[in-house]
Order: sequence, then structure tokens, then C-alpha cells
Amino acid sequence: MITSTANKKVKELAELSVKAKARAETGLFLAEGRKLFMEAPPEQIESVYVEENAYRGADTAMREKLDRVSFELVSGEVFRKISDTMTPQGIMTVVRQKKYETHALLNKTDGRAAMLLILENIQDPGNLGTMLRTAEGAGASGVIMTRDTVDIYSPKTIRSTMGSVYRVPFAVTEDLPGTLAELRAAGVCIYAAALVEGARVYDEPDYRKPCAFLIGNEGNGLRAETVAQADSRIIIPMKGCVESLNAAMAAGILLYEAARQRRV
Amino acid sequence: MITSTANKKVKELAELSVKAKARAETGLFLAEGRKLFMEAPPEQIESVYVEENAYRGADTAMREKLDRVSFELVSGEVFRKISDTMTPQGIMTVVRQKKYETHALLNKTDGRAAMLLILENIQDPGNLGTMLRTAEGAGASGVIMTRDTVDIYSPKTIRSTMGSVYRVPFAVTEDLPGTLAELRAAGVCIYAAALVEGARVYDEPDYRKPCAFLIGNEGNGLRAETVAQADSRIIIPMKGCVESLNAAMAAGILLYEAARQRRV
Repeated sequence: MITSTANKKVKELAELSVKAKARAETGLFLAEGRKLFMEAPPEQIESVYVEENAYRGADTAMREKLDRVSFELVSGEVFRKISDTMTPQGIMTVVRQKKYETHALLNKTDGRAAMLLILENIQDPGNLGTMLRTAEGAGASGVIMTRDTVDIYSPKTIRSTMGSVYRVPFAVTEDLPGTLAELRAAGVCIYAAALVEGARVYDEPDYRKPCAFLIGNEGNGLRAETVAQADSRIIIPMKGCVESLNAAMAAGILLYEAARQRRV
Repeated sequence: MITSTANKKVKELAELSVKAKARAETGLFLAEGRKLFMEAPPEQIESVYVEENAYRGADTAMREKLDRVSFELVSGEVFRKISDTMTPQGIMTVVRQKKYETHALLNKTDGRAAMLLILENIQDPGNLGTMLRTAEGAGASGVIMTRDTVDIYSPKTIRSTMGSVYRVPFAVTEDLPGTLAELRAAGVCIYAAALVEGARVYDEPDYRKPCAFLIGNEGNGLRAETVAQADSRIIIPMKGCVESLNAAMAAGILLYEAARQRRV
């Protein structure tokens, strides 16, 4: 059992928690809590750290999964050091990052048309996580993020995905115009959510065909040049004095409108 | 100018920031930042505190509004003491709480049918604020919360509303069954968002008539007895392994489905 916060492994875990660079260099990320341990694909689990009391109180399902992986016990003090939550559940999974090929983003497993979410410069970790969770729920085929979007592997984003990070294919693009051109060549119609003149109300287009929704930064929305590169511009009508919706909310309303049309 | 954090007013402001009890006893709440100052109804403004540098850097519109209210300058140290944000904008408005009559919740200003959001035991301040913001955007007539819902006047909730707290009528109910009976008597059809057998897909009902959406706690959903009291149970279909959507997201998808039907 690890009882010292000066332990080398503990220091490495603390770095994985707070430093995007450490996550990028090691190709690892932390997934905290019971749900994120239970849903972690076994082949992606690097190691698991369990606080001693959490181990004693573990239910059968958790014990069984722990028996099949390599795990280490840690003291309460050590766990608090590596934890990112106020009330830790006492289990931390170190997970290997997964790289997706472009075709994984373009082909839905159920054989339906692509439905993509493309995020430009999203900065709130909770928003990004919620978008992955909602994308899975709506049946999206993948999520593409610009390089300046917040790190998807930050502990808060991972928690907000509620496990969707294991299942929704995603990719970071260094070249958004190039990616948009690639998608268009693959027959995907690109819709920019933007409060611009001439934008159509979001429920007018036919989303049963391959489609992608561009969502911009929380404060500033999409860059003008990105809006110009889309095939079509759409707005979600707002009553009252509302100037914009929360970015994750806008993404969810668009994805669920596409899901609704495909279900009808 | 107030320069001491030991100043009596500063202590009162700090209490309004962290204590729901202080807010309830005084009937006041804090609205931090430029946007929440600019959108505050003048008749609800109790006082305003402006950090000295923020005052010097204020734009014309902000100066003009400041000229019409009673405000006080404070030092940077004092402002940080009363601020709830990491990068304060240097302006804090003390706002008088507003009580709404039931009819304000039941009658939309545009003369259309009531569209209500009813929240049971929502615990995340950001979620609650986002729900108010989205409710305004969708054209909801009001929001009703159970007593065990997080305090709507907490600084984080107020910020998340992006000003909607000034415009969306809301009420706290001590007696949810009584409130539901009252709404039903007024011709409102009550829909519970619940993952229960026999629930209809959320886009099937006709929301052009007066309607209310019941949304439950983030972790546990609605209480079984609350679900039983609704007129109808609805679900938002989820693909993949998603067990639930974020509570605010679910509320937004339902409200915007109602708005979509009313727009068609």
C-alpha cells in the first residue's frame, strides 16, 4: 500500500491530474470514481489506485473487475492528493488514450448517416464533457475539436462525460478548414450554429443525410471565417432578452433535432 | 472609497455571497459582473460596489447607468473579498429579490399558453442557472422549484442565468403535490421526464396546449411519487450506453421541443 504522498507514482498521478502536457507525453489520463472505473474498457486500463476504505467497502461487481486488473491500495491521504473531487469515491483509473481513425467518425456503428459535432475553441471543461455525453445519447458518430479547445482529458471533462469518453469517437484537428473540406468531400453537410443574418431556423434542414454541427466558443461563438466555411448557417430562436444559449445546450438541441428527424 | 475588508458593509456583502440564510433574511442577492449590472432592473437595485480600476475603465453605457444609481467605490482587495469569480470584472450589484404571483407563471406575456419548468431537488447551481437561461430562450412562462432545490440566489446560479433571473418568473413551492393540483386545475398538462416503463417519446405529445415539464435531481431523477402525480411520463431516447442526460440538457431539449411545436 502506498502511504506517502512523496511516492514517485503519486507524484506522477498528481501531474496527470493537473498537467495537460503530462497527459499528452504519457498518452494517459485519469478517470476518477466508481462509474468511470466500471465502464473503462479493460484493454485501455493502465493501472488502478484504490483507497483502502473504498476497497473494503467495494461491492461484488467492483471487486470482480478489480481482480482482473492490476491495482494498488493507497492511504486516504494519498488519495486526496491525486483526487480532483470534493468527496472522493476512492477509486482512480489510469487509462490509455485511444486514437480514432477518421472513418470511425464518419460511419455510425448502426450503419446510419454520419452525425458529427465540431467544436471550435470550447473552454469550459464541464461543457465539453456534457457535449460528449449528449452526443452519445443523440447517436452522434463522433466529435471533432480544434486544437485550442480545452483538453478533453482534464479530470473535470472526463467526469462530465459520465463514461461517454470511452465510447464516442473523437479527434483533435490542427487544420479546421482542411477537416471541413474533407468532410464535405465525404458528403457531409456542415451547419454552423451562428447568430448571423440569413441563417435558417435550426429545425428546417433535413438532418437525415450526413451532417455536422459547428459550435463555437462560449463567449464569442464561431470565428467569422469558420462560419463562412460552412455549407449552411442555422440559428436556435431565442425569446426574451437571451443573447445566446449555453454552448453545450445549443449542441444538445441541434443533435437531438437531428435524432428526432431520424427517428420519425 | 472602502479600503478595509473589516468594513461592516464588506462583511455583509461577503455573507450575502456565501450564506443562503443571509440572502433569505435580507431579501437581497449579489449579481456580479458588467452584464448582470447592466441588465438589472433599476427598481430592484439596492446598491452597487465598483472596484476603483473598473470604475476608471468603465465604458459610457456603464457610467451612465452608474450615474443613475447609488454606488460606492472599493479597493481591489475589498473587491476580491466579496467576489465569487477567479477574474473579477470589478462590479457587484446588490439586488432586491422579487416575488412572483402564481398568475405571472401561468400567463405568458405574448398571450400564448403556459409553458412551465418544474424542478425537484436540483443541486448543481450551474445547472439551475442554465435552466433559467434556457427557459427564457425557449419562451417558458416560468420556473417552479421545490424547497430542496439549490438556492436560486447563490452567486454561481445567478451568473449562470446570464441575466434571465431578472426576467423569468419563478417560485419556490413548499407543497409540490398541491402546486401540481393547482396547475392541473388551471388546465396545465404535467409531463414528468422519467425513465419509466410506458413513458412516451418526448416529441409525441402536443405541447401547443398549456404544459409543464417536471425535471428531477441530477443523480436520482424525480421521486417515484412525483412521477406518479404527473399526467403523462415522457423520455428522451438515448443511444449508446448513456443512462441519463444532464438535467439542464434534458430540460432544454423538452422546452425547445415545445417551442418548436409552437412555432410550426
